[in-house]
Amino acid sequence: MPEDEAEHLTRVLRLGAGDEVDVFDGHGALWRAQVVQTGKKSAWIRPIEELEPAPELDISLTLVISVLKGDKIDDIVRDAVMLGVTRIQPVISERSEISPASMARGSRVARWQRIAVASAKQCGRAVVPAVHDAMPLDLYWTDPSTRETHQGDSRSLSVMCVEPSSASLAEVVPVHVVKKAAAVDVIVGPEGGWAVSEIAAAHDSGAILMSLGGRTLRADAVPLIALTALLTTWGELK
Amino acid sequence: MPEDEAEHLTRVLRLGAGDEVDVFDGHGALWRAQVVQTGKKSAWIRPIEELEPAPELDISLTLVISVLKGDKIDDIVRDAVMLGVTRIQPVISERSEISPASMARGSRVARWQRIAVASAKQCGRAVVPAVHDAMPLDLYWTDPSTRETHQGDSRSLSVMCVEPSSASLAEVVPVHVVKKAAAVDVIVGPEGGWAVSEIAAAHDSGAILMSLGGRTLRADAVPLIALTALLTTWGELK
Repeated sequence: MPEDEAEHLTRVLRLGAGDEVDVFDGHGALWRAQVVQTGKKSAWIRPIEELEPAPELDISLTLVISVLKGDKIDDIVRDAVMLGVTRIQPVISERSEISPASMARGSRVARWQRIAVASAKQCGRAVVPAVHDAMPLDLYWTDPSTRETHQGDSRSLSVMCVEPSSASLAEVVPVHVVKKAAAVDVIVGPEGGWAVSEIAAAHDSGAILMSLGGRTLRADAVPLIALTALLTTWGELK
Repeated sequence: MPEDEAEHLTRVLRLGAGDEVDVFDGHGALWRAQVVQTGKKSAWIRPIEELEPAPELDISLTLVISVLKGDKIDDIVRDAVMLGVTRIQPVISERSEISPASMARGSRVARWQRIAVASAKQCGRAVVPAVHDAMPLDLYWTDPSTRETHQGDSRSLSVMCVEPSSASLAEVVPVHVVKKAAAVDVIVGPEGGWAVSEIAAAHDSGAILMSLGGRTLRADAVPLIALTALLTTWGELK
């Protein structure tokens, strides 16, 4: 087993030779296994039988999330994994109150990756979604290699959540008209909302602008609400 | 103005005679007003023009929430108000890790009522949902006066959210088949889930047992996910 999981097994779960434990490879396989031998920071296990993990979505779903203040992203990563996302892409937008330098100092991405592993375990998924390094929102639109969804590709879709105050724009649609696609990026803004230029850039890049109703929602609740509303619309909350 | 709001106006917002402020009566009316006079704990205002508040749901929606550990209910109250609920009914279920006595000691209901007011302000609603005193879940089912939804009344509906482990029960349905009704109670359990007897009692009382998919969700995320999924299904996230 990997060193950190071996430590978890021996120190936290206090398991030893002969005990049984459920393990997964992070890519879809879940096994009941038996502990064969443990060392100080090592553990060997033997698979006994393959188990049925929690179901994966039929689509590839990425949460593109503007970095929020403090540790609010922790819960968002945890819940997005439980709702079935495939990938999490943090972005720095105009009103994100954090600099790329302070992102790096806090090892925040490594922390979110650990949370993604813990959340996958807790909800029974055998797949651990990737949490990517944060990037400027500009780059997300201008460098197509940064994302799985592409303008003009009917199998992919980018959906930007906009505040009720933006709903007067002709291009903003309610969630129930957003069609399902094989790969979807859901893009959620920071506490201060999007700059007008960011909404225009998204629209110019082919993103759908989506409204979640007429009541102003807390920024840290929007990812969960947006993902749930889309999965419900697409019959994927199953 | 009420004394606490008058204090908020003078001490926090630091407004005085001649300043303008938006006020609401908690029952649907929102006004732009002008401050006429302020005292130490008092304020008089004069309405100038009626404003359009955030839209209310077409249905009466109650969140029946098992009390969770610590201050987790705070965020749930805040988000439920933003999603448009009409009423919040805390209940003590078998696995709620809190006693009615400690509920009372902490003045938790009064705290949640203050949060409901603050959240209504923040999301632009002019209606403040009622937060009721906590009651045992048993009583909720046995005393019909405790709720707006009633067995056998086609205009009302009780929906209990159950964990994936309960989904093998024949009676559990996915969210997209739950029909809209004029009055709906959505019932969400504590961290440890429902006791089998509690699910049976709900079913016997005519409640629909609803699954939110095959992945185990965090208890504190379930209210937001359940409310969003139902509102999306009913076309009410607008």
